[in-house]
Amino acid sequence: MTFIDKIRNIQSKNNSLLCIGLDTDVSKIPASLKHHSNPQLEFNRRIIEATTDLVCAYKLNLAFYESAGEKYYETIQKTLEYISEEIITIADGKRGDIGNTAEQYAKIIFDDWKFDGTTVNPYMGKDSVEPFIKSEKHCAFILTLTSNPGSKDFQYLDIKGKPLYEHVVENAVNWNTKRNIGLVVGATHPAELKKIRSLVPEMPLLIPGIGAQQGEMEETVRSGCDRNGELALINVSRGIIYASQADDFSKRAREAALKYKEQINNFRE
Amino acid sequence: MTFIDKIRNIQSKNNSLLCIGLDTDVSKIPASLKHHSNPQLEFNRRIIEATTDLVCAYKLNLAFYESAGEKYYETIQKTLEYISEEIITIADGKRGDIGNTAEQYAKIIFDDWKFDGTTVNPYMGKDSVEPFIKSEKHCAFILTLTSNPGSKDFQYLDIKGKPLYEHVVENAVNWNTKRNIGLVVGATHPAELKKIRSLVPEMPLLIPGIGAQQGEMEETVRSGCDRNGELALINVSRGIIYASQADDFSKRAREAALKYKEQINNFRE
Repeated sequence: MTFIDKIRNIQSKNNSLLCIGLDTDVSKIPASLKHHSNPQLEFNRRIIEATTDLVCAYKLNLAFYESAGEKYYETIQKTLEYISEEIITIADGKRGDIGNTAEQYAKIIFDDWKFDGTTVNPYMGKDSVEPFIKSEKHCAFILTLTSNPGSKDFQYLDIKGKPLYEHVVENAVNWNTKRNIGLVVGATHPAELKKIRSLVPEMPLLIPGIGAQQGEMEETVRSGCDRNGELALINVSRGIIYASQADDFSKRAREAALKYKEQINNFRE
Repeated sequence: MTFIDKIRNIQSKNNSLLCIGLDTDVSKIPASLKHHSNPQLEFNRRIIEATTDLVCAYKLNLAFYESAGEKYYETIQKTLEYISEEIITIADGKRGDIGNTAEQYAKIIFDDWKFDGTTVNPYMGKDSVEPFIKSEKHCAFILTLTSNPGSKDFQYLDIKGKPLYEHVVENAVNWNTKRNIGLVVGATHPAELKKIRSLVPEMPLLIPGIGAQQGEMEETVRSGCDRNGELALINVSRGIIYASQADDFSKRAREAALKYKEQINNFRE
Protein backbone atom coordinates (compact mmCIF):
# COMPACT_ATOMS: atom_id res chain seq x y z
CA MET A 1 0.00 0.00 0.00
CA THR A 2 1.28 3.47 -0.79
CA PHE A 3 1.80 5.95 2.03
CA ILE A 4 -0.93 8.19 0.63
CA ASP A 5 -3.46 5.34 0.61
CA LYS A 6 -2.50 4.32 4.12
CA ILE A 7 -2.98 7.82 5.49
CA ARG A 8 -6.35 8.22 3.74
CA ASN A 9 -7.50 4.84 5.06
CA ILE A 10 -6.71 5.52 8.69
CA GLN A 11 -7.93 9.12 8.63
CA SER A 12 -11.23 7.77 7.35
CA LYS A 13 -11.43 4.74 9.65
CA ASN A 14 -10.60 6.61 12.87
CA ASN A 15 -12.22 9.81 11.61
CA SER A 16 -9.14 11.65 12.87
CA LEU A 17 -6.36 13.93 11.65
CA LEU A 18 -4.66 13.82 15.04
CA CYS A 19 -1.02 12.75 15.23
CA ILE A 20 0.25 12.22 18.77
CA GLY A 21 3.88 13.17 19.25
CA LEU A 22 5.63 10.72 21.54
CA ASP A 23 8.28 13.16 22.80
CA THR A 24 8.71 10.97 25.85
CA ASP A 25 10.99 12.83 28.25
CA VAL A 26 12.45 10.54 30.91
CA SER A 27 12.33 13.36 33.46
CA LYS A 28 8.57 13.81 33.00
CA ILE A 29 7.46 10.20 33.37
CA PRO A 30 5.15 9.65 36.40
CA ALA A 31 6.91 8.33 39.48
CA SER A 32 4.81 5.16 39.49
CA LEU A 33 6.48 3.99 36.26
CA LYS A 34 10.03 4.50 37.47
CA HIS A 35 10.31 0.91 38.74
CA HIS A 36 9.70 -0.53 35.26
CA SER A 37 12.71 -1.95 33.48
CA ASN A 38 12.06 0.56 30.68
CA PRO A 39 9.89 3.44 31.90
CA GLN A 40 9.88 5.22 28.51
CA LEU A 41 8.57 2.13 26.79
CA GLU A 42 5.92 1.48 29.43
CA PHE A 43 4.83 5.11 29.24
CA ASN A 44 4.49 4.83 25.46
CA ARG A 45 2.63 1.53 25.73
CA ARG A 46 0.02 3.08 28.00
CA ILE A 47 -0.37 6.24 25.92
CA ILE A 48 -0.81 4.18 22.76
CA GLU A 49 -3.26 1.79 24.39
CA ALA A 50 -5.34 4.73 25.62
CA THR A 51 -5.44 6.64 22.34
CA THR A 52 -5.15 4.18 19.45
CA ASP A 53 -8.72 4.71 18.22
CA LEU A 54 -8.36 8.50 18.26
CA VAL A 55 -5.36 9.08 15.99
CA CYS A 56 -4.19 8.73 12.42
CA ALA A 57 -0.51 8.69 13.37
CA TYR A 58 2.11 8.55 16.09
CA LYS A 59 5.30 10.56 15.69
CA LEU A 60 8.35 9.49 17.70
CA ASN A 61 10.79 12.31 18.38
CA LEU A 62 14.08 10.44 18.12
CA ALA A 63 15.99 12.93 20.30
CA PHE A 64 14.10 11.92 23.45
CA TYR A 65 15.01 8.25 22.94
CA GLU A 66 18.59 8.87 21.85
CA SER A 67 19.21 11.00 24.92
CA ALA A 68 18.01 8.17 27.17
CA GLY A 69 21.06 6.15 26.13
CA GLU A 70 21.56 2.40 25.85
CA LYS A 71 17.95 1.41 25.20
CA TYR A 72 17.47 3.77 22.25
CA TYR A 73 17.14 1.10 19.58
CA GLU A 74 15.00 -1.23 21.67
CA THR A 75 12.61 1.41 22.99
CA ILE A 76 11.81 2.57 19.47
CA GLN A 77 11.54 -0.95 18.10
CA LYS A 78 9.19 -2.10 20.86
CA THR A 79 7.14 1.09 20.86
CA LEU A 80 6.39 0.46 17.19
CA GLU A 81 5.23 -3.06 18.04
CA TYR A 82 2.49 -1.55 20.21
CA ILE A 83 1.12 0.50 17.33
CA SER A 84 -1.54 -1.06 15.09
CA GLU A 85 -0.37 -1.70 11.54
CA GLU A 86 -3.11 0.53 10.17
CA ILE A 87 -1.76 3.62 11.92
CA ILE A 88 0.94 5.80 10.39
CA THR A 89 4.28 5.93 12.26
CA ILE A 90 6.70 8.81 11.76
CA ALA A 91 10.34 9.00 12.86
CA ASP A 92 10.94 12.64 13.69
CA GLY A 93 14.72 12.96 13.42
CA LYS A 94 15.05 15.77 10.86
CA ARG A 95 18.03 14.00 9.33
CA GLY A 96 19.86 15.38 6.32
CA ASP A 97 23.31 14.40 5.03
CA ILE A 98 25.19 13.42 1.88
CA GLY A 99 23.84 10.42 -0.02
CA ASN A 100 25.92 7.60 1.46
CA THR A 101 25.16 8.81 4.98
CA ALA A 102 21.47 9.52 4.37
CA GLU A 103 21.22 5.91 3.15
CA GLN A 104 22.29 4.74 6.61
CA TYR A 105 19.59 6.84 8.25
CA ALA A 106 16.99 5.54 5.78
CA LYS A 107 18.08 1.95 6.48
CA ILE A 108 17.52 2.13 10.22
CA ILE A 109 14.30 4.16 9.96
CA PHE A 110 12.54 2.27 7.17
CA ASP A 111 14.19 -1.16 6.85
CA ASP A 112 14.94 -1.96 10.48
CA TRP A 113 12.43 -0.04 12.58
CA LYS A 114 9.85 -0.02 9.76
CA PHE A 115 8.48 3.48 10.22
CA ASP A 116 6.12 4.66 7.49
CA GLY A 117 7.49 8.20 7.33
CA THR A 118 10.27 10.44 8.55
CA THR A 119 11.09 14.13 8.77
CA VAL A 120 14.00 15.35 6.63
CA ASN A 121 15.93 18.62 6.59
CA PRO A 122 16.25 20.12 3.07
CA TYR A 123 19.34 22.32 3.55
CA MET A 124 21.72 19.88 1.82
CA GLY A 125 19.50 19.46 -1.23
CA LYS A 126 18.21 16.68 -3.44
CA ASP A 127 20.80 13.95 -2.88
CA SER A 128 20.28 14.26 0.88
CA VAL A 129 16.55 13.55 0.43
CA GLU A 130 16.67 10.83 -2.25
CA PRO A 131 17.46 7.87 0.04
CA PHE A 132 14.21 8.59 1.91
CA ILE A 133 11.94 8.58 -1.16
CA LYS A 134 12.88 5.32 -2.84
CA SER A 135 9.63 3.54 -1.99
CA GLU A 136 6.00 4.63 -2.37
CA LYS A 137 5.33 2.96 0.97
CA HIS A 138 7.39 5.61 2.75
CA CYS A 139 7.04 9.35 3.10
CA ALA A 140 9.73 11.98 3.62
CA PHE A 141 8.25 15.04 5.31
CA ILE A 142 10.54 17.89 4.32
CA LEU A 143 11.02 20.75 6.78
CA THR A 144 9.48 23.72 5.02
CA LEU A 145 8.25 26.33 7.49
CA THR A 146 8.86 25.27 11.06
CA SER A 147 6.89 26.23 14.15
CA ASN A 148 9.74 27.69 16.24
CA PRO A 149 10.90 31.32 16.61
CA GLY A 150 14.09 30.56 14.62
CA SER A 151 11.97 29.84 11.54
CA LYS A 152 12.31 33.59 10.92
CA ASP A 153 16.11 33.50 10.62
CA PHE A 154 16.40 31.83 7.20
CA GLN A 155 13.08 30.38 6.04
CA TYR A 156 11.56 33.79 5.23
CA LEU A 157 14.57 35.22 3.40
CA ASP A 158 13.38 36.68 0.11
CA ILE A 159 14.70 35.09 -3.08
CA LYS A 160 13.40 36.56 -6.31
CA GLY A 161 10.19 37.68 -4.65
CA LYS A 162 9.54 34.44 -2.79
CA PRO A 163 10.60 33.28 0.66
CA LEU A 164 13.11 30.45 0.95
CA TYR A 165 10.42 28.08 2.22
CA GLU A 166 8.51 28.45 -1.06
CA HIS A 167 11.67 27.46 -2.94
CA VAL A 168 11.74 24.38 -0.72
CA VAL A 169 8.13 23.67 -1.72
CA GLU A 170 8.95 24.06 -5.43
CA ASN A 171 11.91 21.69 -5.19
CA ALA A 172 9.86 19.19 -3.21
CA VAL A 173 7.21 19.22 -5.95
CA ASN A 174 9.90 18.52 -8.55
CA TRP A 175 11.38 15.67 -6.53
CA ASN A 176 7.96 14.10 -5.87
CA THR A 177 7.87 11.68 -8.81
CA LYS A 178 6.70 8.82 -6.58
CA ARG A 179 4.10 10.88 -4.70
CA ASN A 180 5.81 10.11 -1.40
CA ILE A 181 6.97 13.53 -0.26
CA GLY A 182 5.18 15.52 2.42
CA LEU A 183 5.96 18.87 4.02
CA VAL A 184 6.35 20.03 7.63
CA VAL A 185 4.56 23.34 8.16
CA GLY A 186 4.10 24.83 11.62
CA ALA A 187 0.62 25.71 12.87
CA THR A 188 2.14 28.95 14.16
CA HIS A 189 2.06 30.30 10.57
CA PRO A 190 -1.60 29.87 9.45
CA ALA A 191 -1.55 32.29 6.48
CA GLU A 192 1.58 30.66 5.08
CA LEU A 193 0.06 27.22 5.66
CA LYS A 194 -2.88 28.21 3.47
CA LYS A 195 -0.55 29.39 0.70
CA ILE A 196 1.53 26.23 0.90
CA ARG A 197 -1.56 24.00 0.74
CA SER A 198 -2.61 25.82 -2.43
CA LEU A 199 0.78 24.95 -3.96
CA VAL A 200 0.60 21.26 -3.00
CA PRO A 201 -3.08 20.25 -3.09
CA GLU A 202 -2.31 16.52 -2.83
CA MET A 203 0.66 16.32 -0.48
CA PRO A 204 0.44 15.19 3.15
CA LEU A 205 1.25 18.06 5.51
CA LEU A 206 2.66 17.33 8.95
CA ILE A 207 1.62 20.24 11.15
CA PRO A 208 3.25 20.68 14.58
CA GLY A 209 2.79 23.68 16.85
CA ILE A 210 -0.69 23.12 18.28
CA GLY A 211 -0.78 22.88 22.08
CA ALA A 212 2.41 23.91 23.90
CA GLN A 213 3.47 26.08 20.96
CA GLN A 214 0.02 27.72 20.79
CA GLY A 215 -0.80 27.51 17.12
CA GLU A 216 -4.42 28.41 16.33
CA MET A 217 -6.68 25.41 15.64
CA GLU A 218 -9.44 26.70 13.36
CA GLU A 219 -7.17 28.30 10.79
CA THR A 220 -4.79 25.35 10.94
CA VAL A 221 -7.49 22.84 10.07
CA ARG A 222 -9.17 24.99 7.40
CA SER A 223 -5.84 25.80 5.77
CA GLY A 224 -4.02 22.52 6.23
CA CYS A 225 -6.48 19.95 4.84
CA ASP A 226 -6.82 18.94 1.22
CA ARG A 227 -10.19 19.50 -0.51
CA ASN A 228 -11.56 16.31 1.06
CA GLY A 229 -10.68 17.45 4.57
CA GLU A 230 -7.78 14.99 4.70
CA LEU A 231 -3.99 14.71 4.33
CA ALA A 232 -3.25 17.07 7.20
CA LEU A 233 -1.54 15.34 10.13
CA ILE A 234 -2.02 17.69 13.05
CA ASN A 235 0.55 16.90 15.71
CA VAL A 236 0.11 17.47 19.43
CA SER A 237 2.82 16.24 21.77
CA ARG A 238 3.14 17.81 25.23
CA GLY A 239 -0.53 18.90 25.28
CA ILE A 240 -1.58 15.24 25.28
CA ILE A 241 1.16 13.05 26.72
CA TYR A 242 1.76 15.35 29.71
CA ALA A 243 -1.91 16.27 30.26
CA SER A 244 -1.23 14.81 33.71
CA GLN A 245 2.02 13.70 35.27
CA ALA A 246 0.22 11.72 37.97
CA ASP A 247 -0.89 8.09 37.84
CA ASP A 248 -3.93 9.02 35.79
CA PHE A 249 -1.72 10.18 32.91
CA SER A 250 -3.08 7.77 30.31
CA LYS A 251 -6.69 8.57 31.16
CA ARG A 252 -5.97 12.31 30.97
CA ALA A 253 -4.05 11.78 27.73
CA ARG A 254 -7.10 10.07 26.24
CA GLU A 255 -9.35 12.94 27.33
CA ALA A 256 -6.96 15.47 25.81
CA ALA A 257 -6.63 13.46 22.60
CA LEU A 258 -10.40 13.18 22.30
CA LYS A 259 -10.75 16.92 22.82
CA TYR A 260 -8.15 17.69 20.13
CA LYS A 261 -9.63 15.16 17.70
CA GLU A 262 -13.07 16.71 18.08
CA GLN A 263 -11.80 20.28 17.88
CA ILE A 264 -10.09 19.35 14.63
CA ASN A 265 -13.16 17.61 13.23
CA ASN A 266 -15.31 20.64 14.06
CA PHE A 267 -13.36 22.61 11.48
CA ARG A 268 -13.00 19.97 8.72
CA GLU A 269 -15.07 20.77 5.68
CA MET B 1 39.95 24.64 28.42
CA THR B 2 38.02 26.32 25.61
CA PHE B 3 37.42 24.46 22.38
CA ILE B 4 39.56 26.96 20.48
CA ASP B 5 42.50 26.44 22.85
CA LYS B 6 42.14 22.68 22.65
CA ILE B 7 42.19 22.68 18.86
CA ARG B 8 45.22 24.99 18.72
CA ASN B 9 47.07 22.81 21.25
CA ILE B 10 46.58 19.54 19.42
CA GLN B 11 47.18 21.02 15.95
CA SER B 12 50.49 22.29 17.28
CA LYS B 13 51.45 19.17 19.24
CA ASN B 14 50.69 16.68 16.46
CA ASN B 15 51.59 19.19 13.75
CA SER B 16 48.43 18.15 11.95
CA LEU B 17 45.19 19.58 10.59
CA LEU B 18 43.93 16.12 9.68
CA CYS B 19 40.57 14.98 11.02
CA ILE B 20 39.81 11.32 10.40
CA GLY B 21 36.16 10.59 9.75
CA LEU B 22 35.11 7.34 11.41
CA ASP B 23 32.26 6.56 8.99
CA THR B 24 32.55 2.94 9.99
CA ASP B 25 30.29 0.96 7.66
CA VAL B 26 29.53 -2.52 9.00
CA SER B 27 29.48 -3.90 5.46
CA LYS B 28 33.04 -2.70 4.78
CA ILE B 29 34.75 -4.08 7.86
CA PRO B 30 37.46 -6.67 7.03
CA ALA B 31 36.31 -10.29 7.35
CA SER B 32 38.89 -11.01 10.03
CA LEU B 33 37.08 -8.69 12.47
CA LYS B 34 33.66 -10.22 11.97
CA HIS B 35 34.12 -12.67 14.87
CA HIS B 36 34.57 -9.84 17.38
CA SER B 37 31.64 -9.15 19.69
CA ASN B 38 31.55 -5.61 18.30
CA PRO B 39 33.33 -5.40 14.92
CA GLN B 40 32.66 -1.66 14.49
CA LEU B 41 34.26 -0.90 17.83
CA GLU B 42 37.27 -3.12 17.17
CA PHE B 43 37.71 -1.53 13.75
CA ASN B 44 37.65 1.92 15.32
CA ARG B 45 40.06 0.87 18.07
CA ARG B 46 42.62 -0.29 15.52
CA ILE B 47 42.23 2.77 13.29
CA ILE B 48 42.64 5.09 16.29
CA GLU B 49 45.64 3.17 17.64
CA ALA B 50 47.31 3.35 14.22
CA THR B 51 46.73 7.06 13.62
CA THR B 52 46.52 8.87 16.98
CA ASP B 53 49.79 10.79 16.52
CA LEU B 54 48.81 11.96 13.02
CA VAL B 55 45.52 13.76 13.65
CA CYS B 56 44.01 16.75 15.39
CA ALA B 57 40.52 15.25 15.50
CA TYR B 58 38.30 12.25 14.96
CA LYS B 59 34.81 12.77 13.61
CA LEU B 60 32.22 10.06 14.23
CA ASN B 61 29.44 9.97 11.66
CA LEU B 62 26.50 9.03 13.87
CA ALA B 63 24.46 7.53 11.00
CA PHE B 64 26.83 4.60 10.60
CA TYR B 65 26.48 3.67 14.28
CA GLU B 66 22.76 4.30 14.51
CA SER B 67 22.16 2.07 11.50
CA ALA B 68 24.06 -0.78 13.19
CA GLY B 69 21.30 -1.00 15.78
CA GLU B 70 21.40 -2.08 19.41
CA LYS B 71 25.02 -1.22 20.14
CA TYR B 72 24.74 2.40 18.96
CA TYR B 73 25.20 4.03 22.35
CA GLU B 74 27.92 1.66 23.52
CA THR B 75 29.98 1.72 20.32
CA ILE B 76 30.18 5.50 20.41
CA GLN B 77 30.86 5.63 24.14
CA LYS B 78 33.67 3.08 23.95
CA THR B 79 35.17 4.49 20.75
CA LEU B 80 35.58 7.80 22.55
CA GLU B 81 37.39 6.02 25.39
CA TYR B 82 40.08 4.96 22.90
CA ILE B 83 40.75 8.56 21.87
CA SER B 84 43.36 10.54 23.81
CA GLU B 85 41.90 13.42 25.80
CA GLU B 86 44.07 15.89 23.91
CA ILE B 87 42.42 15.09 20.58
CA ILE B 88 39.24 16.80 19.42
CA THR B 89 36.18 14.58 19.02
CA ILE B 90 33.26 15.59 16.81
CA ALA B 91 29.78 14.04 16.65
CA ASP B 92 28.68 14.39 13.04
CA GLY B 93 24.90 14.13 13.27
CA LYS B 94 23.82 17.40 11.62
CA ARG B 95 21.01 17.73 14.18
CA GLY B 96 18.66 20.68 14.19
CA ASP B 97 15.29 20.96 15.94
CA ILE B 98 13.25 23.25 18.19
CA GLY B 99 14.85 24.21 21.50
CA ASN B 100 13.44 21.55 23.84
CA THR B 101 14.40 18.82 21.35
CA ALA B 102 17.82 20.23 20.50
CA GLU B 103 18.53 20.18 24.25
CA GLN B 104 18.06 16.41 24.20
CA TYR B 105 20.56 16.05 21.38
CA ALA B 106 23.04 18.34 23.17
CA LYS B 107 22.64 16.29 26.36
CA ILE B 108 23.59 12.97 24.78
CA ILE B 109 26.38 14.43 22.63
CA PHE B 110 28.10 16.67 25.18
CA ASP B 111 27.02 15.54 28.67
CA ASP B 112 26.84 11.77 28.20
CA TRP B 113 29.21 10.89 25.38
CA LYS B 114 31.40 13.94 26.07
CA PHE B 115 32.22 14.93 22.52
CA ASP B 116 34.03 18.25 22.11
CA GLY B 117 32.09 19.38 19.05
CA THR B 118 29.13 18.53 16.85
CA THR B 119 27.74 19.44 13.46
CA VAL B 120 24.44 21.35 13.42
CA ASN B 121 21.98 22.17 10.63
CA PRO B 122 21.03 25.88 10.53
CA TYR B 123 17.69 25.66 8.68
CA MET B 124 15.57 26.05 11.83
CA GLY B 125 17.48 29.10 13.07
CA LYS B 126 18.94 30.42 16.29
CA ASP B 127 16.90 28.56 18.91
CA SER B 128 17.80 25.26 17.22
CA VAL B 129 21.53 26.06 17.61
CA GLU B 130 21.56 27.60 21.10
CA PRO B 131 21.52 24.35 23.12
CA PHE B 132 24.80 23.40 21.40
CA ILE B 133 26.68 26.63 22.27
CA LYS B 134 26.12 26.92 25.98
CA SER B 135 29.69 26.07 26.96
CA GLU B 136 33.02 27.39 25.67
CA LYS B 137 34.34 23.84 25.92
CA HIS B 138 32.08 22.75 23.08
CA CYS B 139 31.85 23.75 19.45
CA ALA B 140 28.83 23.71 17.13
CA PHE B 141 29.97 23.43 13.52
CA ILE B 142 27.13 24.92 11.50
CA LEU B 143 26.47 23.52 8.04
CA THR B 144 27.28 26.41 5.72
CA LEU B 145 28.34 25.21 2.28
CA THR B 146 28.31 21.45 2.05
CA SER B 147 30.45 19.24 -0.17
CA ASN B 148 27.66 17.34 -1.94
CA PRO B 149 25.96 18.01 -5.32
CA GLY B 150 22.74 19.06 -3.53
CA SER B 151 24.57 22.03 -2.01
CA LYS B 152 23.55 23.83 -5.22
CA ASP B 153 19.82 23.43 -4.58
CA PHE B 154 19.42 25.99 -1.78
CA GLN B 155 22.77 27.12 -0.39
CA TYR B 156 23.61 29.28 -3.44
CA LEU B 157 20.21 30.97 -3.77
CA ASP B 158 20.75 34.71 -4.07
CA ILE B 159 19.35 36.90 -1.31
CA LYS B 160 20.00 40.62 -1.64
CA GLY B 161 23.14 39.98 -3.66
CA LYS B 162 24.55 37.27 -1.40
CA PRO B 163 24.10 33.50 -1.45
CA LEU B 164 22.15 31.86 1.37
CA TYR B 165 25.32 30.34 2.79
CA GLU B 166 26.74 33.81 3.42
CA HIS B 167 23.62 34.69 5.37
CA VAL B 168 24.30 31.58 7.44
CA VAL B 169 27.83 32.87 8.03
CA GLU B 170 26.54 36.30 9.10
CA ASN B 171 24.07 34.79 11.55
CA ALA B 172 26.72 32.44 12.92
CA VAL B 173 28.99 35.43 13.57
CA ASN B 174 26.18 37.17 15.46
CA TRP B 175 25.44 34.08 17.55
CA ASN B 176 29.13 33.50 18.38
CA THR B 177 29.28 35.43 21.65
CA LYS B 178 31.17 32.59 23.38
CA ARG B 179 33.58 31.96 20.51
CA ASN B 180 32.41 28.38 20.21
CA ILE B 181 30.84 28.29 16.77
CA GLY B 182 32.57 26.77 13.75
CA LEU B 183 31.43 26.27 10.17
CA VAL B 184 31.26 23.27 7.85
CA VAL B 185 32.53 24.19 4.38
CA GLY B 186 33.14 21.56 1.71
CA ALA B 187 36.53 21.28 0.02
CA THR B 188 34.65 20.93 -3.25
CA HIS B 189 34.10 24.73 -3.23
CA PRO B 190 37.62 26.24 -2.85
CA ALA B 191 36.84 29.78 -4.01
CA GLU B 192 33.87 30.02 -1.64
CA LEU B 193 35.99 28.56 1.15
CA LYS B 194 38.47 31.41 0.69
CA LYS B 195 35.68 33.98 0.87
CA ILE B 196 34.19 32.39 3.96
CA ARG B 197 37.57 32.29 5.73
CA SER B 198 37.93 36.03 5.05
CA LEU B 199 34.58 36.58 6.80
CA VAL B 200 35.48 34.48 9.87
CA PRO B 201 39.24 34.85 10.39
CA GLU B 202 39.14 33.21 13.83
CA MET B 203 36.52 30.46 13.52
CA PRO B 204 37.34 26.76 13.25
CA LEU B 205 36.35 25.41 9.84
CA LEU B 206 35.48 21.74 9.45
CA ILE B 207 36.26 20.86 5.85
CA PRO B 208 34.99 17.57 4.38
CA GLY B 209 35.19 16.56 0.75
CA ILE B 210 38.87 15.61 0.34
CA GLY B 211 39.42 12.02 -0.80
CA ALA B 212 36.35 10.15 -2.05
CA GLN B 213 34.61 13.44 -2.89
CA GLN B 214 37.71 14.74 -4.74
CA GLY B 215 38.12 18.21 -3.32
CA GLU B 216 41.42 19.82 -4.29
CA MET B 217 44.06 19.82 -1.52
CA GLU B 218 46.28 22.82 -2.21
CA GLU B 219 43.50 25.37 -2.51
CA THR B 220 41.67 23.84 0.44
CA VAL B 221 44.64 24.25 2.77
CA ARG B 222 45.62 27.72 1.54
CA SER B 223 42.04 28.96 1.76
CA GLY B 224 40.86 27.12 4.85
CA CYS B 225 43.53 27.95 7.44
CA ASP B 226 43.62 31.02 9.63
CA ARG B 227 46.62 33.36 9.35
CA ASN B 228 48.67 31.05 11.58
CA GLY B 229 48.04 28.05 9.37
CA GLU B 230 45.61 26.62 11.94
CA LEU B 231 41.90 26.23 12.77
CA ALA B 232 41.11 24.24 9.64
CA LEU B 233 40.07 20.67 10.39
CA ILE B 234 40.46 18.83 7.12
CA ASN B 235 38.38 15.69 7.18
CA VAL B 236 39.14 12.51 5.28
CA SER B 237 36.96 9.46 5.89
CA ARG B 238 36.79 6.75 3.24
CA GLY B 239 40.20 7.68 1.79
CA ILE B 240 41.84 6.60 5.05
CA ILE B 241 39.69 4.08 6.87
CA TYR B 242 39.06 2.00 3.75
CA ALA B 243 42.56 2.40 2.28
CA SER B 244 42.55 -1.40 2.46
CA GLN B 245 39.72 -3.76 3.30
CA ALA B 246 42.13 -6.62 3.96
CA ASP B 247 43.80 -7.57 7.24
CA ASP B 248 46.40 -4.85 6.78
CA PHE B 249 43.71 -2.15 6.99
CA SER B 250 45.13 -0.33 10.00
CA LYS B 251 48.63 -0.25 8.53
CA ARG B 252 47.30 1.07 5.22
CA ALA B 253 45.12 3.57 7.08
CA ARG B 254 48.23 4.87 8.86
CA GLU B 255 50.07 5.21 5.56
CA ALA B 256 47.14 7.08 4.02
CA ALA B 257 46.78 9.32 7.07
CA LEU B 258 50.49 10.13 7.01
CA LYS B 259 50.27 10.97 3.31
CA TYR B 260 47.29 13.28 3.85
CA LYS B 261 48.88 14.92 6.90
CA GLU B 262 52.05 15.66 4.93
CA GLN B 263 50.18 16.86 1.85
CA ILE B 264 48.27 19.26 4.06
CA ASN B 265 51.42 20.48 5.82
CA ASN B 266 53.13 21.09 2.47
CA PHE B 267 50.60 23.83 1.79
CA ARG B 268 50.36 25.44 5.26
CA GLU B 269 51.88 28.88 5.38
